[in-house]
Amino acid sequence: MIVGFIGFGQVSSTLSNILSSNGIQTVTVVKDRSQKTNKLAVKSDVRIIDSYEALLLGSDIVISANSPANALNIADKYADYMGDGIYVDLNNISPNTTYYMADLFEKPRRIVPQEESSRLNFFKKKNDVDIRNNFVDGAIIGNVSNKPPLIILSGVRANELAILNNYGLNVKVLSKIPGDVATLKILRSLYTKGVSAVLMEAFETAKEMDLEEQLFEILSITEGENFEEKSKSRLKNTYANSKRKVEEMDEALEFLDEVSKGKKHIMTKATKDKFDSY
Amino acid sequence: MIVGFIGFGQVSSTLSNILSSNGIQTVTVVKDRSQKTNKLAVKSDVRIIDSYEALLLGSDIVISANSPANALNIADKYADYMGDGIYVDLNNISPNTTYYMADLFEKPRRIVPQEESSRLNFFKKKNDVDIRNNFVDGAIIGNVSNKPPLIILSGVRANELAILNNYGLNVKVLSKIPGDVATLKILRSLYTKGVSAVLMEAFETAKEMDLEEQLFEILSITEGENFEEKSKSRLKNTYANSKRKVEEMDEALEFLDEVSKGKKHIMTKATKDKFDSY
Repeated sequence: MIVGFIGFGQVSSTLSNILSSNGIQTVTVVKDRSQKTNKLAVKSDVRIIDSYEALLLGSDIVISANSPANALNIADKYADYMGDGIYVDLNNISPNTTYYMADLFEKPRRIVPQEESSRLNFFKKKNDVDIRNNFVDGAIIGNVSNKPPLIILSGVRANELAILNNYGLNVKVLSKIPGDVATLKILRSLYTKGVSAVLMEAFETAKEMDLEEQLFEILSITEGENFEEKSKSRLKNTYANSKRKVEEMDEALEFLDEVSKGKKHIMTKATKDKFDSY
Repeated sequence: MIVGFIGFGQVSSTLSNILSSNGIQTVTVVKDRSQKTNKLAVKSDVRIIDSYEALLLGSDIVISANSPANALNIADKYADYMGDGIYVDLNNISPNTTYYMADLFEKPRRIVPQEESSRLNFFKKKNDVDIRNNFVDGAIIGNVSNKPPLIILSGVRANELAILNNYGLNVKVLSKIPGDVATLKILRSLYTKGVSAVLMEAFETAKEMDLEEQLFEILSITEGENFEEKSKSRLKNTYANSKRKVEEMDEALEFLDEVSKGKKHIMTKATKDKFDSY
């Protein structure tokens, strides 16, 4: 089995190192890439080749780990070169971009206007035909430096990637619908960011009254021993990144308005407003 | 040591049974009380006496476990009979009621208009004189049927109650200011109820998209193994009691407006609105 990486930053080099130490051949392209990427590749056992076309045609699994902004361009540029391999996007893109990207990897390739790519259309198609679609969307949950990092996957052929668990990785297949991973990342963030906002408000008042330590103490009794440590890290991270988190909540609200029309999304709106007040 | 109980429902009978099985004499009064109270007292080792006055004068510790509505009447009626014992209120009263109640137990008794009883005044007084105050406010955290239940305490003489840990109870002294326990119960509920509201919103959307189980799965990875069980119990409890929880959030908002004037309390307001939408 050969695994090709498009982009060779921290995520790709981590995964490539795990796979190659478990006997899997990995390949990447680093020409015209940054010094940092070249350095990471030289330090790895990854085979460096010259052509993305060859990488796509020759790999059983292609992993794209770049940036959300570049993800679609890359998929669009290379989708036609895919052989029978599976293309995994790890770029933290929105559910809508995922649906559009999935359409690019359908065989035979169909030209679909972006506004027609949607989860609903995907469900409809599934009922029409037995889709052959090489696209899988994935996300790393937790820290990429966890040994091994956990990767969640969704897509028509996501099941086939369970084989990677035999080679040192930790993958979990969540569904056959591409985009479900992207959706779950947003739903997960509604919870985690909402909890952060609730923590901020409770502990700001506790601090004013000089009861911060006592509040940690009594909440730890029912919320678990690591509550204090976990909450302090949540708070620190949120205060330090409140501006970026406002943008993320805006994207989440846009998503909710689309999938769950007419509802008010009270807590999500409040979480955004709370972050926005710093 | 003698511990007297005013009111002998589930809380008092549980505590009395633990204490008497550890060699402590407990007493209560059951005349004019309900059949249920009488039955609980008969089934316990508690000594049944006729007079509240005798109970207050003769007990080293007096525990009032009745209802929030009756708590103040009882304290007002019996405060003057207190000897050198400590009076513990376990009735889940508001911080303001606690400050007022604490004033009733100051020696010599001062007549203080209720609107002048406040945490700030208490701090001021503390700086003026070495207060002699027999009042301690307490709350049971978690379930009273936990063996032993955890009781948190605050008050000038709360420290002295640590001795109860030698007789089978589990008490934790949080501060020397009466009312801090009542305040911490509210602050705690800002967190726990806020988390419930955030859970509701995230899982309602997940359910609509048929991704409920997957969302539990990926959140459990970072939030802990018992996340699913705990969250389902939180959700069930919240949907079943949303009306009462709206009232509790109203009280919490009133409290926040008082102690933290001019702030917006975005998450607390949203939590109330979320509960109110059912």
